[in-house]
Amino acid sequence: MQTPWDNRYAQRTQRMKASAIRELLKITENPEIISFAGGLPAPEVFPTEEIREACNRVLKDQSALALQYGATEGYLPLREMIARHASRSGVQIRPNNILITSGSQQALDLIGKIFINHGDRLLVESPTYLGALQAWNQYGAEYVTVRTDDDGMVSEDIEQALRTGPKFIYVLPNFQNPMGVTMSMERRVKLVEMADRYGVPLVEDDPYGQLRFEGENLPGVNVLDAQLHVQNGRYTGNVIYFSTFSKILSPGLRLAWMIAPDEVISKLALAKQGTDLHTATFNQVVAYEVSRHGFLDNHVKHICEVYSERRNVMLDSLAEYMPEGVTWTHPHGGLFLWVRVPESCDTTKMFPAAIRNKVAYVPGESFHPNGGGTNTMRLNFSYCKPATIVEGISRLGNMLKEELCQ
Amino acid sequence: MQTPWDNRYAQRTQRMKASAIRELLKITENPEIISFAGGLPAPEVFPTEEIREACNRVLKDQSALALQYGATEGYLPLREMIARHASRSGVQIRPNNILITSGSQQALDLIGKIFINHGDRLLVESPTYLGALQAWNQYGAEYVTVRTDDDGMVSEDIEQALRTGPKFIYVLPNFQNPMGVTMSMERRVKLVEMADRYGVPLVEDDPYGQLRFEGENLPGVNVLDAQLHVQNGRYTGNVIYFSTFSKILSPGLRLAWMIAPDEVISKLALAKQGTDLHTATFNQVVAYEVSRHGFLDNHVKHICEVYSERRNVMLDSLAEYMPEGVTWTHPHGGLFLWVRVPESCDTTKMFPAAIRNKVAYVPGESFHPNGGGTNTMRLNFSYCKPATIVEGISRLGNMLKEELCQ
Repeated sequence: MQTPWDNRYAQRTQRMKASAIRELLKITENPEIISFAGGLPAPEVFPTEEIREACNRVLKDQSALALQYGATEGYLPLREMIARHASRSGVQIRPNNILITSGSQQALDLIGKIFINHGDRLLVESPTYLGALQAWNQYGAEYVTVRTDDDGMVSEDIEQALRTGPKFIYVLPNFQNPMGVTMSMERRVKLVEMADRYGVPLVEDDPYGQLRFEGENLPGVNVLDAQLHVQNGRYTGNVIYFSTFSKILSPGLRLAWMIAPDEVISKLALAKQGTDLHTATFNQVVAYEVSRHGFLDNHVKHICEVYSERRNVMLDSLAEYMPEGVTWTHPHGGLFLWVRVPESCDTTKMFPAAIRNKVAYVPGESFHPNGGGTNTMRLNFSYCKPATIVEGISRLGNMLKEELCQ
Repeated sequence: MQTPWDNRYAQRTQRMKASAIRELLKITENPEIISFAGGLPAPEVFPTEEIREACNRVLKDQSALALQYGATEGYLPLREMIARHASRSGVQIRPNNILITSGSQQALDLIGKIFINHGDRLLVESPTYLGALQAWNQYGAEYVTVRTDDDGMVSEDIEQALRTGPKFIYVLPNFQNPMGVTMSMERRVKLVEMADRYGVPLVEDDPYGQLRFEGENLPGVNVLDAQLHVQNGRYTGNVIYFSTFSKILSPGLRLAWMIAPDEVISKLALAKQGTDLHTATFNQVVAYEVSRHGFLDNHVKHICEVYSERRNVMLDSLAEYMPEGVTWTHPHGGLFLWVRVPESCDTTKMFPAAIRNKVAYVPGESFHPNGGGTNTMRLNFSYCKPATIVEGISRLGNMLKEELCQ
């Protein structure tokens, strides 16, 4: 049916496509289907009671503040708390290096808004986070890709990609979405050095960094970079870093934060002002109330225990049920792992068979901006309970055995 | 201090300017200054207790839903409630005509994102809402302006402006920000007819529509338009309408809604997916819980009583304290009124004198995209208590008397 709007869409809408994942999520709302497709935290780890108490306190003592308009940059005590926390790594981060955003997706959008001109090239991992591609496609980005293996972005490939003049490098060093892999220390150091040498800045997306089940924490790319770029105690570095409360508190609150040089934060805040004025004050004050006395430090340990068990169950089930020729990553944290099936299989084409077998995953193709990955899939291990994981992987194994016999 | 980001900003950032209002708000945080500059609801009318009870109910009964990721389009029961409410006007609105946004500012941004190509002309009132200009400047919009007087957008000027081929018409028919004026019935009908004749669609921004203190409600531009554009009971009209919970519930929750033909909603949702995934689930479920049994109908009456008294106090004080040659609008609702001082006065240049007199307003110039209005100012009457309004207007009157003598 025609409306007068039909022929008035902006050129940029031509590159807006529904996220394959979010469309899949709709199919997989059928409760009979075991879905490893989403990226949902386990509702069992939501700190419901702490949030409820915080809501009550905030509405008793600070309702005039919490229900009112607020500053675009965010609620100051929350920014101060995040700055203190980020400064633990040895970099001096101040509140004016912090912008509170409406989830990490908004951080991606704001970066696109202030940096990407139509046709700009961005250096990204392949595979990389789908939401970033979705955000940046809207600003007309093109992509130069660098392979990612079990130790993260492959250093040897970066230099050649840097010579194409990308606007920035986008990297997810910890428990990367979609692969679940972590960039090695050696590669982090090389990446920061190369970025510095070529004068190309970095965007570091770190939603899962705190969710490490095993091994030592590695310094963030921003921390390594800061060692090169602190001037008079002021952070003037090469990196825009962001992380989120979605995986350590609740995604339904839509709260994330960015850390960047203060001039960049000012520009991002200006863009945010025109985008949504500010992030919900109430949610910021409540998150601050929940977190201010260190609650999240212990809560994160609890989440790690739950997810670590689920990862183990998934790894064990994969070993038990997957046919010959199928391999997978062994994440040390986060929410996802990555499965490679034989090259002859196309996980997008196999998807209807998976649904018939009442199990869902995300075909890996979607995470490759310039193509490839047709024999890969992303599996989420945070959402389903252990027994469901066993059953789901067994269904997936059976399905793959049938497909491989054909 | 240089960072590698400095020379990498996108062209569109050249048109990003800090909102004059939000910068003024920072100055006016000094508690000695009586500020009529903001657009803040009175905290005394926040339904704190109802929100607290709703938070408790939601976190007791529905935490797994409310704290989790949600659908980009919004929480279905809330969309259904809004659709039912909007259908009261006689237009059949369905949930797939509704998109929940993170405040009205996001509605403006998403409209910009899917419709505005760099250099596109938009037909707007002069003066018009500053936040719309801020949102759309980022997409490279240009403006064709039509005068607005005490009966709203001047019909006689619209046709000529339509001939310049604007992408859409942007109008605030009820208690317009910044003037506080309401578009007459006759002009609404003419606007809808002309838009239809020229095939130019309309964007209707209605944050204050429910806050009418006196006079009869007039049908929205979308309602008048729908009478021309309902096909098989499906709304296929010429209008994107949006309104907000900010003025009837709380701005700190950042909740608004858009009503449009379903194809437009699909495109807006696609853009929103890349922008912030979805609006905070928790806030949507809480707003639904507060509103579902009709609470807002009575609450709006209470807000109207409070604001109506404050408007009266401001009108009386203006009559008492303003020098000869100063005039002002008499709003029938909303949050603002508009003052015209003699043409020889420039309200932007006078602003430091106002701050010295410890009173603040927004200079009218900012609301005129193509210049003009240097002898006007916007005053907010919702935020300050009656005695403060009297004192503030007396200070403003004294200041103006001094300025006029110079």
